[in-house]
Order: sequence, then C-alpha cells, then structure tokens
Amino acid sequence: MTLPARSLRSPVGIDFAAFVGRARPRVDRGLADAVEAVPAALGTVRPVVGRTLGVRGRAGRRWRPMLTLAVAEALGADLEVALDAATAVELTHTASLILDDLPCMDDSGERRGEPAAHVLLGQSGAILLSIGLLARAAELLGRSRDGAELSEEWGRTFGFGGMAGGQAVDVALGGDSRGAMRRLYRKKTTALVAFAADAGARVAGAHQEDCERLYAFGDDLGWAYQLVDDAHDLEEDAALGRAPGGRAPLRQGRRLLQRGLGRLDEVLGIDERGVELLSTLSREVVRVPGEFPLRPRRRGVQPC
Amino acid sequence: MTLPARSLRSPVGIDFAAFVGRARPRVDRGLADAVEAVPAALGTVRPVVGRTLGVRGRAGRRWRPMLTLAVAEALGADLEVALDAATAVELTHTASLILDDLPCMDDSGERRGEPAAHVLLGQSGAILLSIGLLARAAELLGRSRDGAELSEEWGRTFGFGGMAGGQAVDVALGGDSRGAMRRLYRKKTTALVAFAADAGARVAGAHQEDCERLYAFGDDLGWAYQLVDDAHDLEEDAALGRAPGGRAPLRQGRRLLQRGLGRLDEVLGIDERGVELLSTLSREVVRVPGEFPLRPRRRGVQPC
Repeated sequence: MTLPARSLRSPVGIDFAAFVGRARPRVDRGLADAVEAVPAALGTVRPVVGRTLGVRGRAGRRWRPMLTLAVAEALGADLEVALDAATAVELTHTASLILDDLPCMDDSGERRGEPAAHVLLGQSGAILLSIGLLARAAELLGRSRDGAELSEEWGRTFGFGGMAGGQAVDVALGGDSRGAMRRLYRKKTTALVAFAADAGARVAGAHQEDCERLYAFGDDLGWAYQLVDDAHDLEEDAALGRAPGGRAPLRQGRRLLQRGLGRLDEVLGIDERGVELLSTLSREVVRVPGEFPLRPRRRGVQPC
Repeated sequence: MTLPARSLRSPVGIDFAAFVGRARPRVDRGLADAVEAVPAALGTVRPVVGRTLGVRGRAGRRWRPMLTLAVAEALGADLEVALDAATAVELTHTASLILDDLPCMDDSGERRGEPAAHVLLGQSGAILLSIGLLARAAELLGRSRDGAELSEEWGRTFGFGGMAGGQAVDVALGGDSRGAMRRLYRKKTTALVAFAADAGARVAGAHQEDCERLYAFGDDLGWAYQLVDDAHDLEEDAALGRAPGGRAPLRQGRRLLQRGLGRLDEVLGIDERGVELLSTLSREVVRVPGEFPLRPRRRGVQPC
C-alpha cells in the first residue's frame, strides 16, 4: 500500500495538548448539563446519570466527542458550535454501553471499575436510563446547526443498519448471509465513530463531499481502534498462557489507521494543521503513545 | 365549566370515514416501509418487526399517527407531507410498548393477543428492536419538514422529562416530590399524544402559537384517553366483583376531552371542518362510538 504524501510529511507543529485543554472542559460541561436536565422528580435516577456519564466518579476517555470537536476545529469552526453534537455522540455511546452491560446482553456488573447501571438501578432502570440518554441526544442534535440532517444520520447510526444491528448480530439474531452479517457486526463499533467525524464536519458547514470523506475516515478509525483493542486483549491472554498470541490484528489495525489518515488528504476544507490535529488524535485513539490523556488500561475494565 | 362556543355548534358535516380511508393506508404504508428498511442480514429480527408493528398479524388502532395526519389535514396540508412524522409517532409508541412488556417492566407475555417481542426474540432482541424503531423514527423526523425542531421536540417527548421519565416513576424510580412525580407519571401517556398533534402542526407549517395550542390539545386528549381507558378496566373489575366501581374517572376523562376540544377554538389556522375532523377523531379515541374503525376490546389485551 502506498501511503499518501501529506500524512508522511513532517509535522507542522500543532499544540495538541492545547487543543485537549480547550476541548475537554467543553465536553465535560456538555455532559454535566445533560445530568442537570434530568428532572428532580427522578430522585433515584439523576445521580446514576451522573456516574454513568462520568460527571461524578470515573470518566471515560471521551475520545469520540473529542473527535467531533477536532473535526470541527480542523475545518476552521469554533468549538462552541460543535458542542451539542459532540455531547450527543458521548450520550449515544454511553447509552449503548449501558445496554451492553445488561444481564441479557454481555452480563457485566462493572463499567470503568464501578458498578454498572443495572446494578445501581435494576434492569428496568438501566434500560430507561439508556433511552433517556438517547432522547437527550436527539434534543441536542435537533438544536445543532444542520439539525435535520444530523438527526437523520444519527438515526441510521444507532439503528438496525448500525449499532443496534451490529449488537443484534453479536447476540446471534443475524440471518444467513455471513458476509453481510460480518459487515453489520462491525457497525456496532464503527457507526458511531463515523458519525462523530461526520457530525463535526456538518456543524462546521462542510460540503457534502467533505462530510462523506470524513465519515469514511471515522469508519476506518473506528475499526482500527477495535482491532488494536482486541489485539491488546489477545496479547494479555497470551501473556497469561490462555490463548495464542499474534501480531496480525495489530498490524491490520495500524494499516487501517493509515488508510483512514490517507482519506484526510482528500478533504478540501482542511489545511495541514487540521490534518495533523486529526492524525494526532487518531494515533492516540488507537493507543500509540502521546500527549492525549490516556488512562492506564486495567484488566477486567472494558474499553471505553 | 363553560364550553367554548364552536365545539357546541352543530356539525358542518365532514366525511370522517373518507378521511380514515385516505389516512389509514398511508400509515400502513409508512410502517411497511419501516419493516422493509431492516437489513436482510437481520434474518431473525425482520419478521418480528413486521409483527410488532402489525404489518403482519394484528394491527393496533394506530390512532396516534392518524392524529398527526388529521392535524395536518385540519390545517390545510396534504397528508403526504405528514406521513414520515406520523410513522415516527407510531414507531415511538411501539418501541415503548415493547419495553413495557419486558419481564423487568410489566412482564407481559402478550400484546394484542400475540406473543410479545421478548417472547419471540428474547429480552436482548426485544430491547434492540425497540432501539431500532426509535432510530428509524429519528431518521424519518430528520427528513420531515421542520426536521430539526421535530427532532428536538421528539427528544423531549421520550426522554427523562417525558415517556422514559413517566415509566421510571411507574417502576418506582421517582424521588420525593409527589406532585412533581404525578405530573411526570402522566407524561408516560400524554407526551407522545401531545407530540403527535404538535408534529402534524409543524409539518403543516403552522405558526409557533398554533403548534403550542395543538400540543396542549394533544396533552388533554392523551390524559382523557388514559382516564377513560382506566375507567373501563375498573368497570370490568367491578362487574367481576374485584374492585369498587365508580364513574368518577370516566366523568373526569370526558371533562378533560371537552377542555382539549375547547383549545381547538383558539387555533388560528384551522376552520370549522378542521375542528370537526379533530373532534370526531378525539371522541373515537376516548371510546365514544362512531365511524372510526375501533376494534372490540377483549379482556387481557392491553390498550393499544
């Protein structure tokens, strides 16, 4: 595979830590506002919303909303216009984690080292919590720039052809066609990352073609992230003698990351600094060391 | 209570059956399209989507999407512009029924006399089915006229301050303030009916004030429906000697219906035929006999 020219160029020297310093508090604020929006009448639910979103207790890396903000900034937009969409991305992600943890799905009692939502609220409460977060996401997307298109694209993202469909394949509700099922399974991870990038482009007022290129970039990034994450798990298992090791998924993930970064060269509304911002963020996401504040991975804690 | 003048006037003579004849096949088509949109890779899920939406097997009355279409027609819009929003309303309603039936919620194995979704797909499948229907609703609303506002309003409708919040109070996740909890509990029923009316107004291009008046009309209609429905259940129980009877909820429901109909007189963009269309539909919904194709109520079958 020939790598495109620009992604091999020497860095122009962006200050990634400064971006994180600007973006992260905004994401934190958007999520804190989502907790505030829960009616006081739901006395039992509100604190759990706070914990699940990491507003209280341990937060996830929040790299998906950071991606939305980074794309917007890379396209020259102010971070503030991307905040609602970025928050909606993290709410959607958290909603899916809450469902994944349910006894009838992956049956996990912990998330980020703390009790899962269904442990705190019961199954019915956890399901309603997930629905409530999706609802808040719909509100935020509706009031964003390009709200109608964002809502439509978001529906595709978490629906039967996206996250819910991928999870349905995962819990063995798929049909016959194995190739189509494998593609749908990937959407469980990739659909939201692709949407996160696309949403950043839309709120920045990008042309349709650029939105599509950034969607494809997000799609590659999402699957690269998953492959490398799986590879780390395999390595840990191999180190404990529980499974054969093997570097293939890691290599495959990094190749996919390179392909995704190559797509940035096709985006018309982005300059070299924008490419570098998104490249740096992407490399952090797939666990190449750097300035992005990664948390140490611990066994038994699901990827965030 | 003084009834407003117009709702006491003699009917101008609309042909309600003709409206139903125009509107119902459109709703049926919108729902059939939603089934078609499920990817073929989800071989196990697709037929259950069809059954749950009543595209295959027994259908519900579908009065909520009919309300959206009726409001649009009453405001002079073509039914076709309201179809996506109307379908989204029924998808949202069905998504909520699927969750209500789960073992961890109301634990009901039947819906409309057929096996509930969780009986057919397991709990995980039913939850994903519900999520998939909500996602399809988001898509349809996003591509409707006024899609951004519809999406925002829809998020409020099924979120913590609406349907999910009402259901959370129902499964005892509420807090201390009893008045606020009671109001939130009602939203479980009323929020979607209010949205159904509001959505019809929005796709018809109504002014904000008219949208709000029709929202308030829908809110009254929704609670009147629930009160009268509960009253029928109480009467059945009383007839079987299982509970004291009493006409109070029935009277209260009908008073609320009158209040709702009175609100139509305040709507600027509606003429007498429009008022009569919405009045007729409303009276059918709260079970005053008429031409609207009601299905006979059977014990053990939940209201649709």
